[in-house]
Amino acid sequence: MDITIDRKSGEPIYRQLVRRIQEMILSGALPEGFRLPPERRLAEALGVNRSTVLSAYRELKALGLVDSHVGRGTAVLRPPAPPPAVVGVPWRQLFRESVARSHDPILADLLAFSERKDIISFSIGLPAPELLPLETIGRFTTELLDEVGPPLLLHCPTEGHTPLREVIASWVTARGIHARTSDVLILSGSQQGLDLVARVFIDPGDVVVVEEPTYLGALPAFRVAQARIIGVPVDRDGMRTDVLASVLEHHRPKLIYTQPTYQNPSGAVMSLERRRHLLELASRWNVPILEDDTYSELNYDGDALPSLKALDEEDRVLYQSTFSKVLFPGFRVGYAIVPPVVLRQLVLAKQGADLHSNSFGQYLLERFVREGHFASHLERSRTEYRRRRDAMAAALERDRSSALEFERPLGGFYIWCRISDGIDQSALLANAAQRGVVFLPGRACFAAEPPGNFLRLNFSHPSEEAIGVGVQRLLEVIGEASVLARPRGANGPTTSPVV
Amino acid sequence: MDITIDRKSGEPIYRQLVRRIQEMILSGALPEGFRLPPERRLAEALGVNRSTVLSAYRELKALGLVDSHVGRGTAVLRPPAPPPAVVGVPWRQLFRESVARSHDPILADLLAFSERKDIISFSIGLPAPELLPLETIGRFTTELLDEVGPPLLLHCPTEGHTPLREVIASWVTARGIHARTSDVLILSGSQQGLDLVARVFIDPGDVVVVEEPTYLGALPAFRVAQARIIGVPVDRDGMRTDVLASVLEHHRPKLIYTQPTYQNPSGAVMSLERRRHLLELASRWNVPILEDDTYSELNYDGDALPSLKALDEEDRVLYQSTFSKVLFPGFRVGYAIVPPVVLRQLVLAKQGADLHSNSFGQYLLERFVREGHFASHLERSRTEYRRRRDAMAAALERDRSSALEFERPLGGFYIWCRISDGIDQSALLANAAQRGVVFLPGRACFAAEPPGNFLRLNFSHPSEEAIGVGVQRLLEVIGEASVLARPRGANGPTTSPVV
Repeated sequence: MDITIDRKSGEPIYRQLVRRIQEMILSGALPEGFRLPPERRLAEALGVNRSTVLSAYRELKALGLVDSHVGRGTAVLRPPAPPPAVVGVPWRQLFRESVARSHDPILADLLAFSERKDIISFSIGLPAPELLPLETIGRFTTELLDEVGPPLLLHCPTEGHTPLREVIASWVTARGIHARTSDVLILSGSQQGLDLVARVFIDPGDVVVVEEPTYLGALPAFRVAQARIIGVPVDRDGMRTDVLASVLEHHRPKLIYTQPTYQNPSGAVMSLERRRHLLELASRWNVPILEDDTYSELNYDGDALPSLKALDEEDRVLYQSTFSKVLFPGFRVGYAIVPPVVLRQLVLAKQGADLHSNSFGQYLLERFVREGHFASHLERSRTEYRRRRDAMAAALERDRSSALEFERPLGGFYIWCRISDGIDQSALLANAAQRGVVFLPGRACFAAEPPGNFLRLNFSHPSEEAIGVGVQRLLEVIGEASVLARPRGANGPTTSPVV
Repeated sequence: MDITIDRKSGEPIYRQLVRRIQEMILSGALPEGFRLPPERRLAEALGVNRSTVLSAYRELKALGLVDSHVGRGTAVLRPPAPPPAVVGVPWRQLFRESVARSHDPILADLLAFSERKDIISFSIGLPAPELLPLETIGRFTTELLDEVGPPLLLHCPTEGHTPLREVIASWVTARGIHARTSDVLILSGSQQGLDLVARVFIDPGDVVVVEEPTYLGALPAFRVAQARIIGVPVDRDGMRTDVLASVLEHHRPKLIYTQPTYQNPSGAVMSLERRRHLLELASRWNVPILEDDTYSELNYDGDALPSLKALDEEDRVLYQSTFSKVLFPGFRVGYAIVPPVVLRQLVLAKQGADLHSNSFGQYLLERFVREGHFASHLERSRTEYRRRRDAMAAALERDRSSALEFERPLGGFYIWCRISDGIDQSALLANAAQRGVVFLPGRACFAAEPPGNFLRLNFSHPSEEAIGVGVQRLLEVIGEASVLARPRGANGPTTSPVV
């Protein structure tokens, strides 16, 4: 192998090595299977550091030109045909290590599915299109353009549009949370709340406690922060605080994330006793609680229990909610209620993230809440969603096979179903999509291996008719899969054929 | 000091220590000035680890109850009066270390200033309110609510609303950047582009090259990622690529951030020669370039040079721009053009950050561009902003004192002025605000100590009349400060009195 190094060139030596070896591979001078000299030997021959050769071999590997195995050295692979005219940028090598790991892109896929009109979607948590206040939005837009004008389209403070923060403070105060305008931070959807809190509190390797199952969007937010995520199981009374107590003792988490009311996906409501126990544990171990209260206003059988924030005497709970479910998600407006010292840090993080949330949406929502439309919209929503929940529960009951179990939730957007362990979820989803219905595979809601085979079905978005048809299709597909499913362990995981 | 530890309690020992000592301080049992036992001695006495005592003392310090100095041990401070009924949450202790450092909150302050009607603001980069297409927005809203309906208010894909990505791909292709729809990622403002790129590429301690001066919002985005920021000076031909060459050799950066055209804040245009040199250097050292092309369409004296992305034959440039300056910022819609493998990673990061950008704004902007309003809006904007730039330059020339120097920019939103080094910027800003005019202190645009005393003046937002009045006021304040300013080194930094 004939390599000369130009020490006067500004080009780093390892890049010269990569370029030269790449040329020899692409020109055929080094054939497939050719063993490159061991790193140490080449380094000595060229009079360079071994780490320089190591970097060069690593880049050649990233470019797909060589492969290396312990004990067998580094060998040339079949060159890609036709050889690229331009040397590509080895992007994967440039990403952060934590980012280069694979993610489950299920959330993006399901958002994309939601654009398809031929599929009944039980998969994502959208409000009913029939309830959207299109006329009011149109009227408010006209009025605001006329009365307010330019500020609608210009910047607003990072903390949020002050009048919107005001009406939110009053709104949550009426729900037992004593908040001043200055305690309210406007978020670009509640997803941003998770992200900002992670940025402010979580260093790589820090432990975050989530519920098991949990909101699927919480997982990427904590993963990007390189948190170690530990799950605490949820039963019908919410998070198992007895398990939490032991997790606190053994793992010293930096944050506890919970949705105590009408939890997404399980629908569980944390009992009052457990709420108090959770607050007590968090205080004893000095851990902040991030309470995500997205669904508590969507209650269908009596009032919701008080939020953790309303019970919190220490100001330890970071509270967040959003207009995305109770109204609509398209403006990306959520909010957090947090102590002033935390708010300042979240604002600095938000400045770096997106400067501020969109002004237009904030003006519209402010008017919507202030003029009382929000309260009446909630009333209509509860009536309609109660009907849809009952329709879905009835449809699931009607054809109830032993393969599917669920509890009727008291609020929220979802029915959480358990199916037989032998059914493969990916195959089931593919089959269901072919039949024109999709659901959320339960595994998306777990940080680790799920303790069973679950599906999440959304009942708020599809019409009653679509719920009937969709559940029918889904039960058929599950029925067929159940017949094919063998007990676990007999023949390994079963893959249902896509028919 | 009488402390007993309950080893059977679930409460960690360090928390027990904190609680017990806190009680003794608040009750007065340990008076002000009392020296706590050295950590090692207390640890031995209690039979616990020294690190446990260390944690307890650290928390007591964070609570403001004790203070410690090397060589003098840990002493009790005067207890806060009245003693708090509830032990507060020591938030600062819970933040990430990198976050707990102080930030310059200048950006948030200036956004807040922009809401005040009694002050002429040259401080932030807003479009002219007179140019905002309020009527068209009103008409499009009505049409879209009628024709599109619910999707306006519901979710859209993380990558963005597909038709908007389409029109952006065509738009940039006409500007020499060959982009397919699938290469376009919609951002929640260009600020998000900086943030997502940092999340995907930057590990703590990685070096990021920025221009000196640079866009002030880039600094928090890279700081949150814990990057080491290195500045490369800008002269009238843009980034000094000769300096860059040496920075590349010595620091091996992970990313180069640049605004080659009508740079914010300096207005500089990178010469064609330097553009090619920059691309060559980045290729040789295998570093990605993040090109921020926010202002190139706001050209007032002839065409802009081709973007780096248009000259890039390796697909190494990550390109981003935004509608915030050329149209309006209130919807928070920007976009990136990046290679597919990078786009996938950015999308995963965006999912965790805010799920997707607001749908309503994306539908509106798509129609705005597709129906040709964007092109005509740009024409009108160029005419108007050229006039305002000339008005500001003329006003600055008219009363030109030796204390102020500037170059007339060929495009963009700002005039970058240098004033005498002896003037204290904070005092100047306070005096100017009292007189009813504000500017951006130049130091906000530097990662490190600025090489001179600069101000950034925005001319796009204020009317011609306001520009005249504001510049007059500003020059008066600068004139007074110049009289007071002494040569550097004579009496240390001078603080002008607020009169």
